[in-house]
Amino acid sequence: MRLLVIGGVAAGLSAAARARRLDRSLEIVVLEKGPVISYSACGLPYYVEGRVVSARELIHYTPEAFARERNVAVRTGAKVVSISHPRREVSLDTGERVHYDRLVIATGARPDITGIRGAELPHVFTLHTLDDAERLKRFLGDRRPRRGAVVGAGYIGLEAADVLRRCGVAVTVFEQSAYALGRDDGELTDFIRRHLEAFRVELRTHTRVSAIQEDRVDDVPCEIVVLAPGLRPNVEIAAEAGVELGPTGAIRVDERTMTNLSGVFAAGDCAQTAHLLTGRPVYIPLGTTANKMGRVAGANAAGAHERFPGVVGTSIVKIFGLGVATTGFSALQARREGFSPVTARIDAYSRPRYFWGKPTTVELVADRQSGRLLGGTVIGEEGAAGRIDVIAAALHNRMRADEFEQMDLAYAPPFAPVWDPLLVCAQQLLKNL
Amino acid sequence: MRLLVIGGVAAGLSAAARARRLDRSLEIVVLEKGPVISYSACGLPYYVEGRVVSARELIHYTPEAFARERNVAVRTGAKVVSISHPRREVSLDTGERVHYDRLVIATGARPDITGIRGAELPHVFTLHTLDDAERLKRFLGDRRPRRGAVVGAGYIGLEAADVLRRCGVAVTVFEQSAYALGRDDGELTDFIRRHLEAFRVELRTHTRVSAIQEDRVDDVPCEIVVLAPGLRPNVEIAAEAGVELGPTGAIRVDERTMTNLSGVFAAGDCAQTAHLLTGRPVYIPLGTTANKMGRVAGANAAGAHERFPGVVGTSIVKIFGLGVATTGFSALQARREGFSPVTARIDAYSRPRYFWGKPTTVELVADRQSGRLLGGTVIGEEGAAGRIDVIAAALHNRMRADEFEQMDLAYAPPFAPVWDPLLVCAQQLLKNL
Repeated sequence: MRLLVIGGVAAGLSAAARARRLDRSLEIVVLEKGPVISYSACGLPYYVEGRVVSARELIHYTPEAFARERNVAVRTGAKVVSISHPRREVSLDTGERVHYDRLVIATGARPDITGIRGAELPHVFTLHTLDDAERLKRFLGDRRPRRGAVVGAGYIGLEAADVLRRCGVAVTVFEQSAYALGRDDGELTDFIRRHLEAFRVELRTHTRVSAIQEDRVDDVPCEIVVLAPGLRPNVEIAAEAGVELGPTGAIRVDERTMTNLSGVFAAGDCAQTAHLLTGRPVYIPLGTTANKMGRVAGANAAGAHERFPGVVGTSIVKIFGLGVATTGFSALQARREGFSPVTARIDAYSRPRYFWGKPTTVELVADRQSGRLLGGTVIGEEGAAGRIDVIAAALHNRMRADEFEQMDLAYAPPFAPVWDPLLVCAQQLLKNL
Repeated sequence: MRLLVIGGVAAGLSAAARARRLDRSLEIVVLEKGPVISYSACGLPYYVEGRVVSARELIHYTPEAFARERNVAVRTGAKVVSISHPRREVSLDTGERVHYDRLVIATGARPDITGIRGAELPHVFTLHTLDDAERLKRFLGDRRPRRGAVVGAGYIGLEAADVLRRCGVAVTVFEQSAYALGRDDGELTDFIRRHLEAFRVELRTHTRVSAIQEDRVDDVPCEIVVLAPGLRPNVEIAAEAGVELGPTGAIRVDERTMTNLSGVFAAGDCAQTAHLLTGRPVYIPLGTTANKMGRVAGANAAGAHERFPGVVGTSIVKIFGLGVATTGFSALQARREGFSPVTARIDAYSRPRYFWGKPTTVELVADRQSGRLLGGTVIGEEGAAGRIDVIAAALHNRMRADEFEQMDLAYAPPFAPVWDPLLVCAQQLLKNL
């Protein structure tokens, strides 16, 4: 019995490792098209910036180490070009065919740069693979550009802006939508805009970039461009093989990460999942979700019956020292999903002011009918990750605002004020409800 | 209609403020026996140490400011010596009587130094009031003691040891039980012991101190002693007036913070509350709980119908740079409460190692039968507060370990590893269950 895994990064390797743990006798083969496996894509900006000195630090496993420790065959440079499910085999670009009994598709995603002319110019980069990061870092070191542009104000775009700025590049960020971070929240976007401006980074929303010139983007002269559009799931070979896609354009899977084809699972950035607040399919490609889905896919491919119920949409990014974290829905998103959102937003401190607390902004969104929390935002130099995770836990448990307000959270002056900003915001929310 | 509040610190002032907000016409009088109101007792160690420069920074409100902003009469130096409920009045030590229609008892607690001879010696201190802190700070500055002892290894005792050590005092901590932090957890105590030893602080458990000598405690020569025994609720005047106490020795209240006497509420360190994992009464005097209970007492005293359901027992303390946080039950406590505890303990990092993550230890306790989480511990230089709060949120919602493991927590390299230590520990716990 052979389990074949297409893709050797987060979801694929999680699947292989978990399947091996549950079934010692299964033959497991991982095919990765790139030259390396198991690297932290989220660490790339910090390698470009220099905080991470060697790209090797971002690689958790070499193919040899993973193969040895997990007893899994790992092949890099193995590019799958088609799947024939009736024959239970995949074809590589070399013409080689590889048989499978069970298949995990973990083909990931790619920056969606279709429709941007000039993307292939030598001063234009994406920040998706180790190779991308190496190229970008070399260019920054060799050319020392002074003016740059970033296309896309999602988290990768804002991290790229941060990196470029630290490398001495004046930056303009172009975003086609009205909002930063892919979150329909005007106040959050304004907050981010002001924060970026304090570091001399301009954010231009409502600005679609369809072409990169050699010396400028739009009217902004620049010597370097980073493209950080949204991610597009790598679903082509799956779709051609008859794997169903969902309304998000990513692979449709059930709670067990099974596709419509028997014995074929999909996980990670190529697959959609469910939003736990609505049950509806969403495409939110993140490393954490990829790892969790991969684990479940691997377990089920090895014969277990595990579930990955979905996500609440938690994310965090550090932008010029400031943690910006969101989970669940913004008010606008909540309204679109059919809720009647009520919000509260407060400015507080991460710790008592006498203990040098840092400004912390919290927003909570709840549904007027049920009183249930629907989402939240936490912004601050410290404590944003822990606080957003508490809101995420509340969303997972469908907590009402009045229940949330009475939570027994940790307090001591080095960590939090006696009324945590989360609880202060919940009190305000209860007044507004 | 007059609401009388006995006690002008956390619970008392929260009650007064909330009652005023809900009822503009109520007459509200706060009687505080001490010279100041509204100070952060938890900030006292940091004032002694010098990080907080002026004691004034620890005071949120002067009596005048609170009276003016909230339209509440505040009397300091007003010591209530008895309550006559049939007459609806309290007597002060001056003989004066003060009428009430509704009463909130927020008399707090005191360090339980009964049974320690020599507690009144001039080199012996507690760390409970601003006055205590002023005295201790002066003594440290004037005498520059070199050897000291702390009696009690609860959070105040360990904070005091930290402060003394920073002031150049070699410290021995005496604890009568087998455990530090009042948590029946041998591993946690060992961890704390080793951490203290790294800073040349000795922790002697199983050592009851019944007398302080002028120049030593037990066989340890010392020039300064801080007594940090447990807190004892100030219930005497309430009990004499017929207010029922609970099995914990603190005032028995229902979910509405009502005592057995009609129109008489109690909140804060003088009252017990319920443990949400068992529904049983507990006495866990903390500022956060005092504030929340006080708010509910004030609301209900003003005619509302609010509930304070209870606590899960969350706390955190910083000891020589290390955050030590616990919530719910340790395995031993869980067993005593009738559960079948299963634990998992993992060592991980607060962030990816390539992003300079700090060692982080997480322990989770779950019930074998139900799979529900019962408690947790997080220890680390960073992220302990946020992570313990996530576990606390899980306890509030009676989450099972398998649900916890799939939570959608925030990830980015500056904040957390892709598998958060909480989730890694939950995975281990599921294997052990």
